[in-house]
Amino acid sequence: MKAVRYYGKEDLRVEEIDEPETRPGTVKIAPAYNGICGSDLHLYHDGPIPPAPTTEDAHPLSGETLPVVLGHEFSGVVEELGEGVEGLSVGDSVVVEPLMVDGTCPACQRGAYNLCEQMGFIGISGLGGGLSEHIVVESRWVHPVGDIPLDQAAMIEPLAVALHGVKQTTAAEGQVGAVGGAGPIGLLVAAVLKAKGLKTIISEVSQVRREKAQSSGVADVVVDPTSEDLKAIVSEQTSGAMADVAFDAAGAAPVVGQLLDVLGATGRLQVIAIHGKPVEVDLTSQLMMQDRTLGASVGYADDHAEAIELVRSGKVDLAPFITSKILADDIVSDGFERLTKSLDEVKILVSMS
Amino acid sequence: MKAVRYYGKEDLRVEEIDEPETRPGTVKIAPAYNGICGSDLHLYHDGPIPPAPTTEDAHPLSGETLPVVLGHEFSGVVEELGEGVEGLSVGDSVVVEPLMVDGTCPACQRGAYNLCEQMGFIGISGLGGGLSEHIVVESRWVHPVGDIPLDQAAMIEPLAVALHGVKQTTAAEGQVGAVGGAGPIGLLVAAVLKAKGLKTIISEVSQVRREKAQSSGVADVVVDPTSEDLKAIVSEQTSGAMADVAFDAAGAAPVVGQLLDVLGATGRLQVIAIHGKPVEVDLTSQLMMQDRTLGASVGYADDHAEAIELVRSGKVDLAPFITSKILADDIVSDGFERLTKSLDEVKILVSMS
Repeated sequence: MKAVRYYGKEDLRVEEIDEPETRPGTVKIAPAYNGICGSDLHLYHDGPIPPAPTTEDAHPLSGETLPVVLGHEFSGVVEELGEGVEGLSVGDSVVVEPLMVDGTCPACQRGAYNLCEQMGFIGISGLGGGLSEHIVVESRWVHPVGDIPLDQAAMIEPLAVALHGVKQTTAAEGQVGAVGGAGPIGLLVAAVLKAKGLKTIISEVSQVRREKAQSSGVADVVVDPTSEDLKAIVSEQTSGAMADVAFDAAGAAPVVGQLLDVLGATGRLQVIAIHGKPVEVDLTSQLMMQDRTLGASVGYADDHAEAIELVRSGKVDLAPFITSKILADDIVSDGFERLTKSLDEVKILVSMS
Repeated sequence: MKAVRYYGKEDLRVEEIDEPETRPGTVKIAPAYNGICGSDLHLYHDGPIPPAPTTEDAHPLSGETLPVVLGHEFSGVVEELGEGVEGLSVGDSVVVEPLMVDGTCPACQRGAYNLCEQMGFIGISGLGGGLSEHIVVESRWVHPVGDIPLDQAAMIEPLAVALHGVKQTTAAEGQVGAVGGAGPIGLLVAAVLKAKGLKTIISEVSQVRREKAQSSGVADVVVDPTSEDLKAIVSEQTSGAMADVAFDAAGAAPVVGQLLDVLGATGRLQVIAIHGKPVEVDLTSQLMMQDRTLGASVGYADDHAEAIELVRSGKVDLAPFITSKILADDIVSDGFERLTKSLDEVKILVSMS
């Protein structure tokens, strides 16, 4: 079968590999669409970093070294059910929660399997990936999506990331949420907040992304923090009460301070972006004197079903975020290179044929 | 009547002032015991800082300039009830929640009156204080303590601070809590955690304070972080699962990092100590990759009734923390100076006669 394999820095190859075989407890899926994620871009530009294996060191849970099939944000159709699999049928539209976990570490024992000590990702750490004609996945990770179109379904994975972050907070109907950064995760956080009945204020430096935040309907207010006074705008929009929750989907140190500053008393800032360096936080003035909370979260755990329901019920519309559909053969030029150069794109979906 | 008044830096005077008069909606109380708090020490050594007024600038809610009657951690006996006061009787043992709030700011509107924009403290910002023979307080702030001895009752106020911090977290029976610092607030946090059924591990550099943490029964394990490996001990005590919650009652930057390091997946660090400088936090490794939360809280709001019940029910025993009882006339030498020099003291209670 045809697959896109990751060999290392700037080395992706579309090639023929053996088709995987269905085993007891697993499901064979024909991937339909696969989104390109920021972590795919990092792997491509910077070379393998954990949880990716290297050419010498296998991932402990997959046992695989490079090359690995790429792709962890994908939808597909069930082709075959392994022995003992229940609740799924051939022909079902599904998404894969692309994880491998050991199940025994303290985090897994707490139910926080997104924090598994050995954590791996299908499509990064081995066990196949969405950028192939077939993949075999343990049934635990396969979620039926009903009648959600397969292109939108490919975005359930990043939506689950956004939802997981929002669920760490006290975000509730009637509140006001500020979001720093209108990349894919920032937009999806805003979409979840809107679905939950919050008013959303998105701060984003790029005009193209601000426009997308508005045209997609997830931003009630957009702010350019380089030319506008975010704090004054949040104050005006909230009659001085300031935001109840804020989300850092930008990963830049100044954004952390800006977002803490727009929180009201008892507000919570949730960081859902990687920060390469430590950030200075004034625990006394920025947190304590307002009983505020600073949280940070990664991935998802038991969030896929709720993410699927948000889309199935129409509360979240993922269509505006699909900005291109390309073929696997063009993945470098039309996918990785375009995403690196252009802020026009939100999500590029790749199909094998 | 006799009162201890604060005139400014290193200037406390025991003097005769007019006795206050009961007004409608207020309660006249004869203070019994008044604890000396860390913020009293700051005022004494460093001079007036908000919410204390100065000799020129009045506090906006009390309208008073210096001098003010000192003392905000106090118990007493009801002497007289103003018109319209219900639920209290002359002779009742009570404590005062020593606040003045405007009630209209966004924080007050959220119920978080501890974060009132104009926040003042009875005994710091004016309106009398516990270091006097009589005080008149709005009935809203007066809490009956039943048969709790009046000396222990004087510690309800700092216990409410500790309880408020613990209530921001998910601390629950069967969990493990780490506490950094065994000063009065650290000990009281540990007492609340024990009352809620947690195992407590207290990290404290002072041997005297470690001994108090053990002899008072609030520490299951004490650790000297200068000579022992706190992280290894927490790991051993939790079979590798690490702490569920941690509390910074020390206010030193290294303690923040040490406590984040002993948290397990999804753990929360609550800061209940003033940090004079910003602290560097690695949002990615110290928070995000473990879905951790960093909170900070101050004061109390609707916490006194629960604090009183913890003591009344016997779940928290405040007696071990009362290390001296002195008279108001000796407050400088036996109170402020002794607390500054010695780590032997936890709480010094002052009575007027």
